[in-house]
Amino acid sequence: MSAALGGRGGLSINLATIREQCDMSEAVDACLRHSISAISPWRDQIAAIGLDTAARLVREHDLTVTGVCRGGMFTASDAAGRRAAIDDNMRAIDEAASLNADCLVLVVGGLPDGSRDIAGARQMVTDGIGAVLDHARAAAVPLAIEPLHPMYAADRCCVNTLSQALDMCDTLAPGNGGDLGLAIDAYHVWWDPELAAQIARAGREGRILAHHICDWLVPTQDLLLDRGMMGDGIIDLSGFRDMIEKAGFSGHQEVEIFSAENWWKRDADLVLETCIARYRAI
Amino acid sequence: MSAALGGRGGLSINLATIREQCDMSEAVDACLRHSISAISPWRDQIAAIGLDTAARLVREHDLTVTGVCRGGMFTASDAAGRRAAIDDNMRAIDEAASLNADCLVLVVGGLPDGSRDIAGARQMVTDGIGAVLDHARAAAVPLAIEPLHPMYAADRCCVNTLSQALDMCDTLAPGNGGDLGLAIDAYHVWWDPELAAQIARAGREGRILAHHICDWLVPTQDLLLDRGMMGDGIIDLSGFRDMIEKAGFSGHQEVEIFSAENWWKRDADLVLETCIARYRAI
Repeated sequence: MSAALGGRGGLSINLATIREQCDMSEAVDACLRHSISAISPWRDQIAAIGLDTAARLVREHDLTVTGVCRGGMFTASDAAGRRAAIDDNMRAIDEAASLNADCLVLVVGGLPDGSRDIAGARQMVTDGIGAVLDHARAAAVPLAIEPLHPMYAADRCCVNTLSQALDMCDTLAPGNGGDLGLAIDAYHVWWDPELAAQIARAGREGRILAHHICDWLVPTQDLLLDRGMMGDGIIDLSGFRDMIEKAGFSGHQEVEIFSAENWWKRDADLVLETCIARYRAI
Repeated sequence: MSAALGGRGGLSINLATIREQCDMSEAVDACLRHSISAISPWRDQIAAIGLDTAARLVREHDLTVTGVCRGGMFTASDAAGRRAAIDDNMRAIDEAASLNADCLVLVVGGLPDGSRDIAGARQMVTDGIGAVLDHARAAAVPLAIEPLHPMYAADRCCVNTLSQALDMCDTLAPGNGGDLGLAIDAYHVWWDPELAAQIARAGREGRILAHHICDWLVPTQDLLLDRGMMGDGIIDLSGFRDMIEKAGFSGHQEVEIFSAENWWKRDADLVLETCIARYRAI
């Protein structure tokens, strides 16, 4: 059955897409019902069923884990907070290793409470990733910085362009694309005037570790929870995938949709059927 | 009285800030009550009282018009639509000339209906500005491209970074900063990892035509109508202004706040008092 979902790198389901309907065990069952054998779970979903159970599911069903979401959140207003974030990322790396994940996705954090210093926040991110990189290497878990849309720069992620994320990689792990790279989510970067050039650069530097898809709706009703199913919005996802493949990445397309008012309210099987149909259409 | 609002380039009020409370005549009266003699009206506000009346208000009160909002919207799905946009921009240029405005602000337009081709939309913008530039020169109305936040790329403005806007200027009017430049709004570009470098570049190229301010609220409740009063959000507006001045721009700071649930519901005098107090604080 997997051939039916092959081509264009195969389909992976980020389990946030059906998080309101299913716990991780139920989500895996649902994916398997639809011949989907690649997933990306969130840490709270792993914790809810226990890491051992999650790892057993992955082994028993020979699942591909295209990423674990998420590490990061390195920015904090004091040293204790930053230390706690580093410790938490160490644990996240271990969890990703237990699931044999392709990468640990990093959503790096926004401005610390009360801060207006985005340059300072970005330095905290560089420092934080630097502090966990050796542990990630030892665990053979590549770290994937995910540049988030600039509308999240204040409260969630101060790395907002491919260029910026690649510069950070070059600083921390020069010439070492396998250990530190990017999760490239079409939703976050489709608008970037440098999109084609920076995807090509990411490929040249061996830094494309994951490719996430969903769609940008017009109008978008909520900054966080109104992402669209592929085909319902305005992103040229086929052209985007062409750039990704031309840059040398042939891995999965991972569907990640936060949709409080639409897809999270629908039956999980219907959501997965729709993901498959739309994935095939693009 | 103007000295009280001097320093840091003086204060201008974009009349969108009190658009729900006042028509343009009332807004001018309100500004004058608070010793504010620089404004930036919107075309619908001008039309509502008539261009002749608006021009008379400007002359009689010796107002500085830091910009007219707005031209642009060059993207359309057919040639007739693009032609209509160009014609409308010609009229906007004439209106700005009648008010002796410092510039006509261009919000260039997003994706045409049904389109996923952002590169194509961007070419339409270049073509559109190219088609009106001579008319603007003849009317002595500088055109100010306003890069808008990437969250507006689909539906409002496909020019989303300072770098991209400056490249467009270099293509259309090489070495000719006085005719074609930028309106730099802190709300739209504060997150840009290249902010300092591109503001410096804009200054070197003589392309800073206007400087708008407001603040980014955390959380932001609405993509369009939840902009904050200076000081209520997370933008380092003082540091931002330092960059602008270091780049050679000493003109007004123009307050432009769209705030459906807060400032648009308050008394116009209170809004203006608050603008003055916050402007002084930064």
